[in-house]
Amino acid sequence: MSQQQNKKSVSGIPRPTIRRMPLYLSFLKTIDTNTKKHISAPGMAKVLGFDPTQITKDLGYTNVVGKTRVGFEIEELIPAIEEFLGFNKKNEAFLVGAGNLGSALTKYGGFEKTGFKIIAAFDIDAEKVGTEINNIKVLHMDKFEDLAKRMHINIGIITVSDEYAQEIADKMVEAGIKAIWNFAPTPIKANQNIIIENTSIYSNLAVIIKKLK
Amino acid sequence: MSQQQNKKSVSGIPRPTIRRMPLYLSFLKTIDTNTKKHISAPGMAKVLGFDPTQITKDLGYTNVVGKTRVGFEIEELIPAIEEFLGFNKKNEAFLVGAGNLGSALTKYGGFEKTGFKIIAAFDIDAEKVGTEINNIKVLHMDKFEDLAKRMHINIGIITVSDEYAQEIADKMVEAGIKAIWNFAPTPIKANQNIIIENTSIYSNLAVIIKKLK
Repeated sequence: MSQQQNKKSVSGIPRPTIRRMPLYLSFLKTIDTNTKKHISAPGMAKVLGFDPTQITKDLGYTNVVGKTRVGFEIEELIPAIEEFLGFNKKNEAFLVGAGNLGSALTKYGGFEKTGFKIIAAFDIDAEKVGTEINNIKVLHMDKFEDLAKRMHINIGIITVSDEYAQEIADKMVEAGIKAIWNFAPTPIKANQNIIIENTSIYSNLAVIIKKLK
Repeated sequence: MSQQQNKKSVSGIPRPTIRRMPLYLSFLKTIDTNTKKHISAPGMAKVLGFDPTQITKDLGYTNVVGKTRVGFEIEELIPAIEEFLGFNKKNEAFLVGAGNLGSALTKYGGFEKTGFKIIAAFDIDAEKVGTEINNIKVLHMDKFEDLAKRMHINIGIITVSDEYAQEIADKMVEAGIKAIWNFAPTPIKANQNIIIENTSIYSNLAVIIKKLK
């Protein structure tokens, strides 16, 4: 889940639309376009469990126009969604906190298709600094600001424990980071020009456990 | 993020309330109760960036009553939230898909404080079956149903790739799983008695990249 501290829309596009786009993309990529060339909004709705009108509205933002009774051309729609999302561009990030979750994200291969790449990890733990996670170096936090500025890094990921999250966020902002993806359970704060996404897996877990009770 | 396919509330408690509870819990645990015994809703609101009225309303579900001008007793509130969330009970889960993300979740130490524990991982890849992730065995998927039934496992986690997610979900339901936590990018479906939480990290990433553009 994400706490929506920032605005509810991004340059006029509703956040929920942006959030659904990667789901459409993933689904479209599972279709074998040798046997199936087109898909309609109701066809997608059936599989994804969303409202077809909503899907039509969402896909309208890509400027791809579906044909009556046929639907969207899949091979036209996929790159259009990738462009809409910026997944066709390089998006490099620095991660701080090379613990369990940080290592997992650094290793995670699934990001490649989004153009997103963690290119360095930072920590202050002497046992971690100098090691490598999947060929990505773990550097001392002291080097963060200088490197982020020189490499023009815009995205910072926080995977430190709760009590250090805000301090790291402040350091990221000083280093010119424009977007912070925070995995620490406590939401972080920054001035309103900074993009913040808080991802707390505990919140999802909480809903599951609460419902099971 | 989570697609809210299921109901918007859980036995009358709004989903957003349940989602915020782990954030309150994490924050409260960072406070040194040797020097600070009480906290008020406005005090929490200041740190967490939520509305104080909302916090008061949320915490009301724990039945802990705050004192006027003093606030909530922290050492009373922490176990009350844990009980509300069911984090004080054992919640055992089986995970299917011992790839990058699956291994990461299996290794993740942060779950311990929630009573949640992945006790076995399953895969069909001969290279993975028989190995161990942090002392947790990777078993062949063939053994899932029998073991889940014998051990009365209620929670299943899906970390397989997109095209297999629905198939695994169906197998989980057959095996008596009551709640599915799906990390595959495509939402899964099951009959309405099954609790489904879809967690897609791509959706959060999409918002960040879209805003940066």
